[in-house]
Amino acid sequence: MIVPALPEAVAAELSSFFDSRRASTTRVDPLFCSAVAELERFVLRGGKRVRPAFAWWGWRGAGGDPSGTDAPAVLRACAALELIQACALVHDDLMDASATRRGHPTVHVAFARHHQEQGWRGDSDRFGLAASVLLGDLALAWADDMLRGAGLGAPALQRCVPVWEAMRTEVLGGQYLDVLTEVRGDESPEAALRTARFKTAAYTVERPLHLGAALAGAPEDVVDAYRAFGTDVGVAFQLRDDLLGVFGDPAVTGKPAGDDLREGKRTLLLSFALRTADEKDSPAGAALRSGLGRDLEPSEVDELREHLVQLGAVTAVEHRIAELTQRGLAALDAAPVEPTARAELHAMARAATERTS
Amino acid sequence: MIVPALPEAVAAELSSFFDSRRASTTRVDPLFCSAVAELERFVLRGGKRVRPAFAWWGWRGAGGDPSGTDAPAVLRACAALELIQACALVHDDLMDASATRRGHPTVHVAFARHHQEQGWRGDSDRFGLAASVLLGDLALAWADDMLRGAGLGAPALQRCVPVWEAMRTEVLGGQYLDVLTEVRGDESPEAALRTARFKTAAYTVERPLHLGAALAGAPEDVVDAYRAFGTDVGVAFQLRDDLLGVFGDPAVTGKPAGDDLREGKRTLLLSFALRTADEKDSPAGAALRSGLGRDLEPSEVDELREHLVQLGAVTAVEHRIAELTQRGLAALDAAPVEPTARAELHAMARAATERTS
Repeated sequence: MIVPALPEAVAAELSSFFDSRRASTTRVDPLFCSAVAELERFVLRGGKRVRPAFAWWGWRGAGGDPSGTDAPAVLRACAALELIQACALVHDDLMDASATRRGHPTVHVAFARHHQEQGWRGDSDRFGLAASVLLGDLALAWADDMLRGAGLGAPALQRCVPVWEAMRTEVLGGQYLDVLTEVRGDESPEAALRTARFKTAAYTVERPLHLGAALAGAPEDVVDAYRAFGTDVGVAFQLRDDLLGVFGDPAVTGKPAGDDLREGKRTLLLSFALRTADEKDSPAGAALRSGLGRDLEPSEVDELREHLVQLGAVTAVEHRIAELTQRGLAALDAAPVEPTARAELHAMARAATERTS
Repeated sequence: MIVPALPEAVAAELSSFFDSRRASTTRVDPLFCSAVAELERFVLRGGKRVRPAFAWWGWRGAGGDPSGTDAPAVLRACAALELIQACALVHDDLMDASATRRGHPTVHVAFARHHQEQGWRGDSDRFGLAASVLLGDLALAWADDMLRGAGLGAPALQRCVPVWEAMRTEVLGGQYLDVLTEVRGDESPEAALRTARFKTAAYTVERPLHLGAALAGAPEDVVDAYRAFGTDVGVAFQLRDDLLGVFGDPAVTGKPAGDDLREGKRTLLLSFALRTADEKDSPAGAALRSGLGRDLEPSEVDELREHLVQLGAVTAVEHRIAELTQRGLAALDAAPVEPTARAELHAMARAATERTS
């Protein structure tokens, strides 16, 4: 998907950044330093580094030179995205009351367990809540510090600022919409798409690419192409995620089968299914509505899955994914993007929209 | 305590900042914009603007000219501290499960109630948690944006950065220590003082003054004096808060009588009392230890208060407040600080350490 060295290079930058903070957290208290070490482990365990990769290749595509003198600073700026992501994940897991992430206990659960094991006073869950709120806040504050301290020239940093600011507001707005759409039981495709647009597409693809373009001082046509590509491919990425959340193999995704159904997530997949069921006056609509958000048995999960397939929602979402990906790639291809980066972005678009985990 | 116009001027800057963000939050979704309006009301209701005032007078004391061309940008930079404070309060109220703040429902409670009133799906408290986590995150991200966009010259902004970064890490570290000291039942004066040092003194007085000095490009002797003053007066401010948390008049403080006892807060006041009780082998120690953190009757609160007085802890803390304030003022007086600002900082130190609410 990306040059194999990139995730490791990003991890190395994150590790150096945490090293550089150890003196100041120890000065507050060694116990605070230990808590931050937990955040560091969380960040260093993390995933595919998708956002730094889009930012890096966005920069490359706009003429950034990986052997140039500014490349190390650009890499650090890209890596800073992972600290925003750390905040998003730590706080998201708390909000969703998720117990595990990447095969490890989530941060609030790890701290709650530690509280329990130590036989400390008060409520363990409350301690887990406090620790995860504070460590998420720290990651968010440090993301800014890492960008600011990346070593970019003043003009490059200046060009990044509006993109960085827009991205943080958009992801928090998208997360809020996600929660709100769920509690309001909003079944409209518009609500599902708007959440996907801001919570995922803007934050995961569009703005990281835009940030890369800003780092390189790219011309407007490249920025426009990146944003069009990023929005389409980013939404397609979320739609793939929605399918995996219902049909994914637990052994591959690391999440229980049909997890999104139990959580009652309001996805485009579900919107399509409910709309078709209502049009056809099918009893599948009532079955889906009553099952959603409940603690379903495996056989009930199977039944709801079957409804989603029978109502044509899976086909419709697959079709939409293909359409969006194609449109996004066409936008990219029409712009003067450096060929190696273009090929890489093609591969990343395919990987993001065709993945199985 | 401060020029009467300053809190209003800070509020006006905050209000303009929120105005400037309305287009981008509406673009995400009008429903997100409404949620942010709740955060705005929370920020605009807020208090004495202590942190911006220390920053402003720190700048004035180092030669900042209130009629100079950079004054408006400096005021905006000082006002940005209130957005960090908004995050701290919103997240703190969630962590403490506090129901009210400044006579209004706390943010998580307001959103939980709204959920309930609207008859939305799922658990109301969980919605309140999510909304307050996300709005606190937004305030923290926007604090950075507001500082960066204040209109400071590049050198002034550059001078602020290390102070700003240290302050955010320190306050989050201090908050974590506060939680940890409580759950560990750490009775040592050292733990109480360290929490006061970072959660309160560094964040409320020392670093805001330091930020003001950095804005003005103050010489090292002024910075050192501010930091010494800020640490001492800031700790004294917290010790006053500790006394008010136990002995304050609910009609003035807006908090239930003896609230800190019910919450089981680990204050220097309590450390002193327990140490003396242990030295004297007094049964008051056991009474305090078993009462702390429980849902006490008013008569039990009275009894614990009486123990704190009888054990000499109140006198010892009052003594420490006086000592710290005096030492802080002496440090300030030894430095070349502009006289109007010096007088103002004297008044602010007195107000912070002698207040009744």
